[in-house]
Amino acid sequence: MVAIANAEDGTEGIYVHAAPFFGDGHGQFEFMASEVSREKPIDYATMARLLIDQRDAADGYTIWITGPALVHSRARSDMSWFIDNGFVGALLAGNAVAVHDIEASIYGTTLGMTRTGEIKAGGHGLHMRAINMVREAGSIAAAVKQGLIKDGIMYECVTHNVPFVLTGSIRDDGPLPDVITDMVKAQDAMRAHTVKATMAVLVATALHAIATGNMLPAYVTERDGGLRELPTICVDSSEFVVSKLKDRGSHQAFGVVTNAQDFMHILRLYVERELESRGSAK
Amino acid sequence: MVAIANAEDGTEGIYVHAAPFFGDGHGQFEFMASEVSREKPIDYATMARLLIDQRDAADGYTIWITGPALVHSRARSDMSWFIDNGFVGALLAGNAVAVHDIEASIYGTTLGMTRTGEIKAGGHGLHMRAINMVREAGSIAAAVKQGLIKDGIMYECVTHNVPFVLTGSIRDDGPLPDVITDMVKAQDAMRAHTVKATMAVLVATALHAIATGNMLPAYVTERDGGLRELPTICVDSSEFVVSKLKDRGSHQAFGVVTNAQDFMHILRLYVERELESRGSAK
Amino acid sequence: MVAIANAEDGTEGIYVHAAPFFGDGHGQFEFMASEVSREKPIDYATMARLLIDQRDAADGYTIWITGPALVHSRARSDMSWFIDNGFVGALLAGNAVAVHDIEASIYGTTLGMTRTGEIKAGGHGLHMRAINMVREAGSIAAAVKQGLIKDGIMYECVTHNVPFVLTGSIRDDGPLPDVITDMVKAQDAMRAHTVKATMAVLVATALHAIATGNMLPAYVTERDGGLRELPTICVDSSEFVVSKLKDRGSHQAFGVVTNAQDFMHILRLYVERELESRGSAK
Amino acid sequence: MVAIANAEDGTEGIYVHAAPFFGDGHGQFEFMASEVSREKPIDYATMARLLIDQRDAADGYTIWITGPALVHSRARSDMSWFIDNGFVGALLAGNAVAVHDIEASIYGTTLGMTRTGEIKAGGHGLHMRAINMVREAGSIAAAVKQGLIKDGIMYECVTHNVPFVLTGSIRDDGPLPDVITDMVKAQDAMRAHTVKATMAVLVATALHAIATGNMLPAYVTERDGGLRELPTICVDSSEFVVSKLKDRGSHQAFGVVTNAQDFMHILRLYVERELESRGSAK
Repeated sequence: MVAIANAEDGTEGIYVHAAPFFGDGHGQFEFMASEVSREKPIDYATMARLLIDQRDAADGYTIWITGPALVHSRARSDMSWFIDNGFVGALLAGNAVAVHDIEASIYGTTLGMTRTGEIKAGGHGLHMRAINMVREAGSIAAAVKQGLIKDGIMYECVTHNVPFVLTGSIRDDGPLPDVITDMVKAQDAMRAHTVKATMAVLVATALHAIATGNMLPAYVTERDGGLRELPTICVDSSEFVVSKLKDRGSHQAFGVVTNAQDFMHILRLYVERELESRGSAK
Repeated sequence: MVAIANAEDGTEGIYVHAAPFFGDGHGQFEFMASEVSREKPIDYATMARLLIDQRDAADGYTIWITGPALVHSRARSDMSWFIDNGFVGALLAGNAVAVHDIEASIYGTTLGMTRTGEIKAGGHGLHMRAINMVREAGSIAAAVKQGLIKDGIMYECVTHNVPFVLTGSIRDDGPLPDVITDMVKAQDAMRAHTVKATMAVLVATALHAIATGNMLPAYVTERDGGLRELPTICVDSSEFVVSKLKDRGSHQAFGVVTNAQDFMHILRLYVERELESRGSAK
Repeated sequence: MVAIANAEDGTEGIYVHAAPFFGDGHGQFEFMASEVSREKPIDYATMARLLIDQRDAADGYTIWITGPALVHSRARSDMSWFIDNGFVGALLAGNAVAVHDIEASIYGTTLGMTRTGEIKAGGHGLHMRAINMVREAGSIAAAVKQGLIKDGIMYECVTHNVPFVLTGSIRDDGPLPDVITDMVKAQDAMRAHTVKATMAVLVATALHAIATGNMLPAYVTERDGGLRELPTICVDSSEFVVSKLKDRGSHQAFGVVTNAQDFMHILRLYVERELESRGSAK
Repeated sequence: MVAIANAEDGTEGIYVHAAPFFGDGHGQFEFMASEVSREKPIDYATMARLLIDQRDAADGYTIWITGPALVHSRARSDMSWFIDNGFVGALLAGNAVAVHDIEASIYGTTLGMTRTGEIKAGGHGLHMRAINMVREAGSIAAAVKQGLIKDGIMYECVTHNVPFVLTGSIRDDGPLPDVITDMVKAQDAMRAHTVKATMAVLVATALHAIATGNMLPAYVTERDGGLRELPTICVDSSEFVVSKLKDRGSHQAFGVVTNAQDFMHILRLYVERELESRGSAK
């Protein structure tokens, strides 16, 4: 049964009272009260515990939504580690994440830039060559099987049967053969995962973070019928994206304002420590 | 005839020498040498002259690429003015620009926020209602003809036969019936305009600005066969987007770091002044 | 009589109840609820009315706190216009504002950059030459009287007897002879003006905006004993500074996220229009 | 002997030719050519090696310039670790760094916020209480000796005889008794360290980073008379500060766009790994 009304003030018989979920606020003279700020401490320990809890729960399903900044840098090996160790239920991303990741596997560069940030001569064309190779192979999975793609994020997804949804965008080169170029179909493909999600991690992607925020339920129904907030981690270099996410109604998102590669590295470190303290390294 | 080589150093018989176009630099002790900065003066007078020159040129074709921030605010009436006065050859935008603009025409709000920034009770659903009305009408043009949409950006485009391309994105609500949801088709639709462009104005849209930057030629061929740089104005609230545009090879873009609504208002003011001084208001 | 207590919850006999001043909030499903955002409309008309009201009120005293970005650009002539037309009760700024303004008057550059953003050969030393000239003259007022400084912000302050406080900072070159280099004395000098302020305009200066925010009273006592909020306009290129200001307790500040030179230009335009409609151009 | 000329083009007999130091550039079709970007990889391994090299060199003198964001968060214990392990030749900071650090030692909060980001009731006054306690003790060193300050950045500086310069600013509360409130004297105190510096680390402080950038020599003279660039690490949440630093002539600065607490944590991690691989933990 679903109760429906448009007014929020009770005049149609329904009154929205969310305070019991959200608490009742603080005193009147608040310092540091802004919700999203680079100056707030980042609670890696709690995030690490949540990730492990969801991995080990019977119905845990953590979806990761990532942007290309994550692949431009060292974060690629950390993301691969998270997939390899069972922390990723599904990966939702754009064409660019897969393109950069595959260019890195084949040529050792991302957009022609080496791991140490040097620009390789002629490197501006390498991502197109990588795309064309995968197109010839037929799909990313085929390219992995043929030994073309030997490591990285897409490699780990394919070899561990982690489902991924690659959605197109108007600024894509290519795209890769696996990319869903129709946005209505792509949203449907994403929703197939967001509806099952028990946790969400959104890293360095304004576009996909907001898309996912629109789809994510605010609460997860527990087995005993109870409700708990769906934990959502949103990482971006600026306060803007997270504030925007909240402006569109994703109340439960908590924001981390930092660099994506640093975030991934420390998060992995805390997960490894927590696994060690639990005596359960996978 | 097209000469082709991969190496950039002349070893394949082709040497790229762009300096005659770009000049040969400055002294060694430069202050304020960063190319993109909010602290640089903004040359509205030159931009206004260029816009009028292109409007009045026989083959002038200025394309505008705009983001939703432009419609959230007062800039909507300024943008409408530019269309009404012949400065817009084609409009390239996402679903959200049209949705917010049409919500503003029907309900007087954008995402439920009034022109003065107040939040209207129940306003969070108005953009969906607006989309549904246009879907029922069949198209934006039909909704204009039926009198549903009475003013604004889309209204001016329809009544002045200014072509528009609305492209979908993964974060769209709706979308509107005119939106091209397949990204490959949407890129083709955009290219039909970028190839004709003699000037480009990109306002408040990281996604579409970079998409368009990928498609825009660097030079326009004059009637006498000469080459001139295609003037490109890129407006954003942060230095990041314009720097990113340059990183991907849009050398000719010059950046304006400011708020979209302020940009539109001052640009219009300078265009009006220049028109007056030329004695040629429209 | 002043009531004093440390606890905020009434346990010491005092309960803080600010809601009557701040209103009682909105519905539960808010869109666009963030307080500071570049996507919110900017209400120039109200700001213009407030500025004129304060100028024409018997006890009106509007203090302006400005950063150097304002002088780097065309905003210099707009700021001069505001001083010339009686809108500035006092100017609080750092050494750099006066240095750039005086370099502009003597050499036509700011930090060696011309009004159109070109870098002048040898221009990196001009601000030091300007400082040395004023040091030789003895003070800014003396340099104005000797005809060395012929226009601009400091010129208008001197010729209209508008008091100014120039405070030093650790990154200053020079400084100019009028600059108060001791921070304790500088704060006292600023407080002499903030205590009288009936309105405050803070443009493009994180450092001085927060300093002034710390000093500004939240309310102004009217002649009839009533309280009204002290209107505070805070302009910056990013949401960060205004959020930071609010984090430190400046509840009454409302933020404008835009470029300083565009802000000044449009604000002046609206003030001119409002003056015209009131039939009272000074 | 010093050669002096004003023109940069050789007309006064001196021609500046810096290319041998800076290299001669790349090809014409550069991707990712912007110098400062959050999307570039961060080379923690090289930074860690440089820090250890300077610590162990006979004349190594690494100065650290830090902002309060570093103390708001977990980075405080990492910074303390760097001091404790000999990596800090001198600490240059503003009043706020010491205030927050001392509040953290006495009350366990920074600006009333706990280590996990909770706002403590009545916490808005704690930094003032901390300042007053130190004022009563007479100095930070005295407060350490009396057992008032038991851990943290200032504690480590005092107990390890690491010199620190605390400079005032116009937005300071207090200030603490050790703070140099006169900016001319404060600059002199900073210069006493910058002139000896063989490396500089600037974290999360626009104001002090630019102040220090103005003072730092571009090159260090080696014992054999050779010149090498003075390595400078500049960490900030946005590209803006580092670009600004470069605009003012600090060519040798390389920028890290990230969150200060994450930077400190990973840098320490890499230093610990490098020490281990060198078999020389302190």
